[in-house]
Amino acid sequence: MHSKPLIFLDPFPRTEAMVWTPDTRAAMEAMARVVPHFGSRAPDVLVEDILPEVAVIVGQTALPAERLARAPKLRAVLNVKANWEPTIDYAGAHARGIPVLSAAPAMAPAVAEAALGFAIALGRGVIQGDRAFRAGTERYGIAGNADAISLFDAPVGLIGFGNLGQALVPLLRPFGCRLAAHDPWLSPEHLARHGLEAKPLDDLLADSRYLFILAGVTAENEGFLGRERLARIRPDACVVLISRAEVVDFEAFLDFAQAGRFRAAVDVFPEEPVPAAAPFRSTHDRVLFSAHRAGGLEDSYRRIRAAMVEDVRQILAGRPPMAMQRAEPALAAISRSR
Amino acid sequence: MHSKPLIFLDPFPRTEAMVWTPDTRAAMEAMARVVPHFGSRAPDVLVEDILPEVAVIVGQTALPAERLARAPKLRAVLNVKANWEPTIDYAGAHARGIPVLSAAPAMAPAVAEAALGFAIALGRGVIQGDRAFRAGTERYGIAGNADAISLFDAPVGLIGFGNLGQALVPLLRPFGCRLAAHDPWLSPEHLARHGLEAKPLDDLLADSRYLFILAGVTAENEGFLGRERLARIRPDACVVLISRAEVVDFEAFLDFAQAGRFRAAVDVFPEEPVPAAAPFRSTHDRVLFSAHRAGGLEDSYRRIRAAMVEDVRQILAGRPPMAMQRAEPALAAISRSR
Amino acid sequence: MHSKPLIFLDPFPRTEAMVWTPDTRAAMEAMARVVPHFGSRAPDVLVEDILPEVAVIVGQTALPAERLARAPKLRAVLNVKANWEPTIDYAGAHARGIPVLSAAPAMAPAVAEAALGFAIALGRGVIQGDRAFRAGTERYGIAGNADAISLFDAPVGLIGFGNLGQALVPLLRPFGCRLAAHDPWLSPEHLARHGLEAKPLDDLLADSRYLFILAGVTAENEGFLGRERLARIRPDACVVLISRAEVVDFEAFLDFAQAGRFRAAVDVFPEEPVPAAAPFRSTHDRVLFSAHRAGGLEDSYRRIRAAMVEDVRQILAGRPPMAMQRAEPALAAISRSR
Amino acid sequence: MHSKPLIFLDPFPRTEAMVWTPDTRAAMEAMARVVPHFGSRAPDVLVEDILPEVAVIVGQTALPAERLARAPKLRAVLNVKANWEPTIDYAGAHARGIPVLSAAPAMAPAVAEAALGFAIALGRGVIQGDRAFRAGTERYGIAGNADAISLFDAPVGLIGFGNLGQALVPLLRPFGCRLAAHDPWLSPEHLARHGLEAKPLDDLLADSRYLFILAGVTAENEGFLGRERLARIRPDACVVLISRAEVVDFEAFLDFAQAGRFRAAVDVFPEEPVPAAAPFRSTHDRVLFSAHRAGGLEDSYRRIRAAMVEDVRQILAGRPPMAMQRAEPALAAISRSR
Repeated sequence: MHSKPLIFLDPFPRTEAMVWTPDTRAAMEAMARVVPHFGSRAPDVLVEDILPEVAVIVGQTALPAERLARAPKLRAVLNVKANWEPTIDYAGAHARGIPVLSAAPAMAPAVAEAALGFAIALGRGVIQGDRAFRAGTERYGIAGNADAISLFDAPVGLIGFGNLGQALVPLLRPFGCRLAAHDPWLSPEHLARHGLEAKPLDDLLADSRYLFILAGVTAENEGFLGRERLARIRPDACVVLISRAEVVDFEAFLDFAQAGRFRAAVDVFPEEPVPAAAPFRSTHDRVLFSAHRAGGLEDSYRRIRAAMVEDVRQILAGRPPMAMQRAEPALAAISRSR
Repeated sequence: MHSKPLIFLDPFPRTEAMVWTPDTRAAMEAMARVVPHFGSRAPDVLVEDILPEVAVIVGQTALPAERLARAPKLRAVLNVKANWEPTIDYAGAHARGIPVLSAAPAMAPAVAEAALGFAIALGRGVIQGDRAFRAGTERYGIAGNADAISLFDAPVGLIGFGNLGQALVPLLRPFGCRLAAHDPWLSPEHLARHGLEAKPLDDLLADSRYLFILAGVTAENEGFLGRERLARIRPDACVVLISRAEVVDFEAFLDFAQAGRFRAAVDVFPEEPVPAAAPFRSTHDRVLFSAHRAGGLEDSYRRIRAAMVEDVRQILAGRPPMAMQRAEPALAAISRSR
Repeated sequence: MHSKPLIFLDPFPRTEAMVWTPDTRAAMEAMARVVPHFGSRAPDVLVEDILPEVAVIVGQTALPAERLARAPKLRAVLNVKANWEPTIDYAGAHARGIPVLSAAPAMAPAVAEAALGFAIALGRGVIQGDRAFRAGTERYGIAGNADAISLFDAPVGLIGFGNLGQALVPLLRPFGCRLAAHDPWLSPEHLARHGLEAKPLDDLLADSRYLFILAGVTAENEGFLGRERLARIRPDACVVLISRAEVVDFEAFLDFAQAGRFRAAVDVFPEEPVPAAAPFRSTHDRVLFSAHRAGGLEDSYRRIRAAMVEDVRQILAGRPPMAMQRAEPALAAISRSR
Repeated sequence: MHSKPLIFLDPFPRTEAMVWTPDTRAAMEAMARVVPHFGSRAPDVLVEDILPEVAVIVGQTALPAERLARAPKLRAVLNVKANWEPTIDYAGAHARGIPVLSAAPAMAPAVAEAALGFAIALGRGVIQGDRAFRAGTERYGIAGNADAISLFDAPVGLIGFGNLGQALVPLLRPFGCRLAAHDPWLSPEHLARHGLEAKPLDDLLADSRYLFILAGVTAENEGFLGRERLARIRPDACVVLISRAEVVDFEAFLDFAQAGRFRAAVDVFPEEPVPAAAPFRSTHDRVLFSAHRAGGLEDSYRRIRAAMVEDVRQILAGRPPMAMQRAEPALAAISRSR
């Protein structure tokens, strides 16, 4: 007989280093008996073993209806990634009063910082300026700033207003940007409460001097920023693609950017790692490339660990989780993780 | 006899395009009779001619005591640069009740935006990441972020807290930075009112994860960031040099940065243009270089023109100027413009 | 056959004037077929009649498990009060994926404004000052301010941090108050994210210069501010009782206030209306009394109507409600409405 | 021979208790040799005695040109009141590079807090509600709130935007008020930078649901809110008179308020103390009266002492004063103190 509740830790592809530092381990083991599994998704035999007793699952363990039915003590599932995994029966968990939580809010600040840095780099020509200086072709002051634009007072558009948008907006606010957003999931009034004007997508594309693509991928919106849509983007806009490459026609996006139709920073790709021979590596010198590095730094994992400990403590005490994000069953079910 | 007051416009090195757009001209000429001179500093004969009648001088016209004595109707001098010119008798103008104003507040937002962009680029390795991607040596996610640091919750130091600092602090605030500053001109209480801890310079250098060099040059502080001082900077700090190169030992600064002692972005140089053969152009690939482009973009000149029109209107109506910065005679007199 | 979804409107004790203005009615009827009932709780026969078809219930209709079972199309319940009614099977509704929503967020701003007004009135002696002036016993300036205290920089404690607290904190922030809170339901980290220090109740009582009692009543916390607890309040603190009288020992509370042990404003009472003969009406001249007027003004009902229309639109479109508050089943079930 | 600079302290009507607490005295005496005089304006013989050596005058010592001429070491004058005294030659002091400073910024927070408290009390009927409760005539909830209005989203007008306005605006901001102001001394752009719309006075009177009279008295604006102007105030507006009674036709103001034309709170009077027999004491039961208690509490004097010490330290070190407000000679000269 065990006096402490059982936590099952199955965080792959998160590693032990990311989620199981000594202080995290100490905090968790003070509250619960923890069965950890690292390095791969836990084998079925281990999962079957813990189901009858487990109180909290931390990780991406597959949880179809049949498994939920065999986990009578399960109180919460903490997905320590930023996406909703397709292997969970979200409606079933909800019906059993088991919240499924994601760590997206803990990842969002780092992504927002990168998005802002990319936007300033595009608007102010930071990379081009550095290259020109090394080439001895730099021009000083306003002579070098013919194309420079600024976030101050600029019309800015957010495509999607979830965790990333909520982390980005406070960083943009002191620039006095006129902020607008398109998110079909949210009410215009909700956007207004966050100081954002709700705009139809085509208007947002046409009006924004800076455009942040922050939408996740669902079964319904894959590729919604196709070539025709991208053609509506305001000429010379600064476009930051930072959520998921699958929401755009990626080839068209790169073509437009390299043709000077708009400026672009790209942190996410349809295939990662990008093939060594991908031609755009060398040809697309106008695009700012980043190897999916916007969110995944130690600072984010520190936040994820803190959120995990905080919400496990809440849940084991019979209180609601406060740090992580609860799955909206209808949205989580159509989400396309990878 | 003239019914309208006389304004003398002598803005060189500011050009006609920078300060004399059609709408600006229309606004000014509705208030005053304007005598403009562009393309060079106004010749003495022209200056002598306008002195007896001039109400407002816009530009960098030399104004020693003797000229002030011959300008009985002069009410204000609007320097449309961001530095205090050494050719004005500041104490004399003050004694006559003639405010001398600079456009520094209008330049500061663009500089602050660039400073923030540089800081994020340094902390997150934006330029190195882009280069690695083109070279096919990029690493994804946390594997590529071994050196990445973030502004969120970071200790940040400002060296100097004038116009640039006041424009930068609001941009840093949403990151939750712990802000400190060193400015011998200001009281600790004043810094505290702006949410900054006052720190001795050596403590600031040792403590700050991000360091912004924002101090202007005066007769008293030239080179105050010498090699020994720079050696106190916290290892691997991100240092943004964006006010005036003369406040640092520039060679030592570049050496430390290239040696990996700290990360650096440099917008200002001891000599501009930088000589074509300056060796650091090619050797110092760890430094982010920018050709004095932080402030001088059209957005800033738009702000300067607006501030000029606003304050001319105030002054001609007998009201105090509100947009531009008034010279503090004691400080302006020791300032080292160029 | 009906093409539009059915909404049942059963808002008593909310009146037609509160929730069914012409523009609200027009907005609702554009989306749905509405069956309204005003003036009393809807009779069972009417409820039974709509159950098979109803998509959204707006109001306080009793919804035990058996009724939920007979409402196969029900998608949401919008309680247009600020409390959780005990007549709903919250766990059952949750299990069926039917969110139960309350209008508490729409009431909170008005209550927060009143709470702030009461706090300033207590701290600055507004009512006593007005009375003294009429009596000709006023004293001017600092002579009249011997007991005056100010919110600026003051230690402030919130007992409970739900909707009221979240509406009040932004109003207190510009005073630079040191904000602390006690709420056993919330994590200290959550409070810290809102800029509040988490404190044990007794510390909060002892430390706070201003104390706001904002906790709702549950089966577990009734009367938790008993005489002994109240005796721990910092001498001469300003205490605002504005959520529910049942959380305090009301008689002890009034006694302490009238004895000058602390200053108090009271908006809620154990029995409302207060009996005409209640002795404290005349004897307790040091207490600021308000007849449960903190939240219920037209401004609040305007917000409730707007939130109702917004969330009905979201729900009927298959999107999540954004304006009203979702019941946390475990908390709603123990809530003590009245 | 004296090694330390000389400070002359002549603060009457400020008392020793207000400006000379032990810690203040210790801080000042560590920096300077202090000659204090309390209880009356310093006699001429004492003033004459200190003039040749004095470095800083703290107080309201009369300083006509002749005295300034005999004070060759004088570096600054710190008026520890909130008004500009008429007994100083402001232009002469300015010409000599001697800043004259006032403590108005240190008084402003307390006044702003009181102004906000009065506004909420008027809008929400706090005093009337308390009286009704005692009389047993209270009505509950919305029945008692027929006349209640709220600051949230309300159009608010500031008459004058100096120290008081700058302290009040941050307190109003979280209410989402639409803020407008009238101040003939300031540019519309300056007001816009503070988030205020500039409005002609008559429009401000007609549009504002809440009106704050914050203007000081000058030779030019005395009585500018005469009966005709007051008649333009929006019906049932909440009007807070808190700067100086001399800017309004006081009798007309009270008449309008008592007639129910608008609601009013009054902290300042044409004659103070108000004569015992002033009829409005008893007749004007709709007006909220306060005996000039908005600013003068210990908190304000603590701020004044801190500002005094901070700026004396700056001045003696040859640095600019940062805490107190510098006289704008043109405005200070026409100011009507009392």
